[in-house]
Amino acid sequence: MQLALSLGRRGLGRVWPRPAVGCVIVRDGRIVGRGMTDGQTGPHGEVLALRQAGAAARGATVYVGLEPCSHHGKVPPCADALIKADVARVVSAMEDPFHKVSGRGHARLREAGVTVETGLMEAEARRDHAGFLMRLTDGRPMVTLKLAMSLDGRIATGSGESQWITGPEARRAVHAMRARHDAVMVGGGTARADDPSLTVRGLGVSAQPVRVVLSRRAGLPEDGVLARTGAEVPVWVCHGREDPLPEAFAAQGAVGVPCDVRGRYVDVRSALMALGERGLTRVFCEGGGSLAASLLQAGLVDELVTMAAGLALGAEGVPALGALEIAWLSEAERFALAEVRPLGGDVMARWVRGRSL
Amino acid sequence: MQLALSLGRRGLGRVWPRPAVGCVIVRDGRIVGRGMTDGQTGPHGEVLALRQAGAAARGATVYVGLEPCSHHGKVPPCADALIKADVARVVSAMEDPFHKVSGRGHARLREAGVTVETGLMEAEARRDHAGFLMRLTDGRPMVTLKLAMSLDGRIATGSGESQWITGPEARRAVHAMRARHDAVMVGGGTARADDPSLTVRGLGVSAQPVRVVLSRRAGLPEDGVLARTGAEVPVWVCHGREDPLPEAFAAQGAVGVPCDVRGRYVDVRSALMALGERGLTRVFCEGGGSLAASLLQAGLVDELVTMAAGLALGAEGVPALGALEIAWLSEAERFALAEVRPLGGDVMARWVRGRSL
Repeated sequence: MQLALSLGRRGLGRVWPRPAVGCVIVRDGRIVGRGMTDGQTGPHGEVLALRQAGAAARGATVYVGLEPCSHHGKVPPCADALIKADVARVVSAMEDPFHKVSGRGHARLREAGVTVETGLMEAEARRDHAGFLMRLTDGRPMVTLKLAMSLDGRIATGSGESQWITGPEARRAVHAMRARHDAVMVGGGTARADDPSLTVRGLGVSAQPVRVVLSRRAGLPEDGVLARTGAEVPVWVCHGREDPLPEAFAAQGAVGVPCDVRGRYVDVRSALMALGERGLTRVFCEGGGSLAASLLQAGLVDELVTMAAGLALGAEGVPALGALEIAWLSEAERFALAEVRPLGGDVMARWVRGRSL
Repeated sequence: MQLALSLGRRGLGRVWPRPAVGCVIVRDGRIVGRGMTDGQTGPHGEVLALRQAGAAARGATVYVGLEPCSHHGKVPPCADALIKADVARVVSAMEDPFHKVSGRGHARLREAGVTVETGLMEAEARRDHAGFLMRLTDGRPMVTLKLAMSLDGRIATGSGESQWITGPEARRAVHAMRARHDAVMVGGGTARADDPSLTVRGLGVSAQPVRVVLSRRAGLPEDGVLARTGAEVPVWVCHGREDPLPEAFAAQGAVGVPCDVRGRYVDVRSALMALGERGLTRVFCEGGGSLAASLLQAGLVDELVTMAAGLALGAEGVPALGALEIAWLSEAERFALAEVRPLGGDVMARWVRGRSL
């Protein structure tokens, strides 16, 4: 099952809106087939593993990271394929809460005489499928917020210089994190100030996450990197309903996502719901401070990744987070430490919300 | 030698202005004596280890964390004691740069026919003796700056609430760090706002570090914890030369340390030099933000300990550091990561200056 889950995780960021599911088939103590969800439209892991196993699947045990599907979606039901291959036993990590499956995959297998066990390494599986599950239950993608900063919580000097506070190892880790998410999201201010490309680079990764910019007035410079590369890697602009995406952007390939407005900004909850509707399950937010603060204030941050460098920038530095309107410590949400390690000369820590993982 | 150094470290914080030196005597592969500097006036580790070894010291090998002394200070010279005990070999971690020793201890031993080797685990010894060495070379104690904060670098909410951001494990670690320093130092603003006791509690430690407050006008409340307890645990107030310590404080036991003034504050370099003159070798600074920033700006922070909790307080929170007047990243001093680990739900990282360790 460990191998099945780890195969599945390889699909994170490239199979949305589907779950990233891995499958391992074992016959007489030998692995005879492996597979994982193939992109956004290809076969599921079970089918690929069955293909690899061929006749060896007969009487075998199948380990799979999520309940095999029972419905005709983009592909035919995996439960039927497993039955047809005459496997003896299916061990799944958890039931698929998707309303078209929701226990029916397991039931169909059992009816056909296949032994079914569920719940093996379920906690790990829930963590892997957190985005897929959150979209089903809450309608929105899960959100990872990254803060790369000085040891005193600043993301730029008073004069605005921000490149580079953290070192090459930390920046490389950021690219790897981008690759495991469906989308990378920034606020309009950051898009204008830094003119970032927000792509995954230097990792030999072919699939690129969608680039999402929250900008009430859809105010991206037409000659910026994002606007210019919208035809190659998707750019989605979450804008206020009264400020549609300018024609010029659309012509360059950008897609407008109309959202509610809250004060001067796009409402973050409305934006995330709209992104969920469009199929995103995992969003990686890279700032700036106002967007990060809005997400935290709205209780929409599921995972927080901090990267702290060994230098101090002082009170004139640009804060990693805007105002949170927290007067008392009891009002601040406490995140649980999930992981901490050195990354080159920087410190990386991963913090999670109790309920999300 | 490892054992000798570790014995020596037990004296950190309680032997100033002397170095904290451990000694282990080995005869025929068996440890026959151990000792470490006994407080501020008691025997050195060599003498205590010799006493323990008795006749077994004859022909033995002596491991010691610093060159044995050759002069009559508070105690008679250790080199003579070692010669008298007829030891065969002395292995020391490093030469003592103190002008009254500085190679003469080793020389005297060699003249008496004792084999002398030096430099074993010298890097570790230099780290242990950093405060002692810094006072000899620069005239000031080494400075450890502690920042206990939210993950976005805030030490209190906008309304001033600061207890507690970090958890019990981190606070316990702070008490252990206090115990390993000669003095705990805060700015006058923190002393007035938090009314701290700055003592070591809950660790069964008897020796207490000196409490140092930097306050240009010696402005401590007479009914505060520090003023009231000055007779039990030393309180030293670094004040401007034109604002002497009020009679009432002195009567309660506080000691005034006149220092130069820089702008609105006591000049931190002048204060540290004055503390060095009074014998302090290791100072643990616990804020607030202005004092911490002054130390960083003056390049006087040798070691930085950050403790980050899993909550964000946002831009209205009180910053851990005041203004540093850094416009460009190249102006910020880079600290090297020496250690990082989880402490309960918080992240503790230790950062060091290149040259200091």
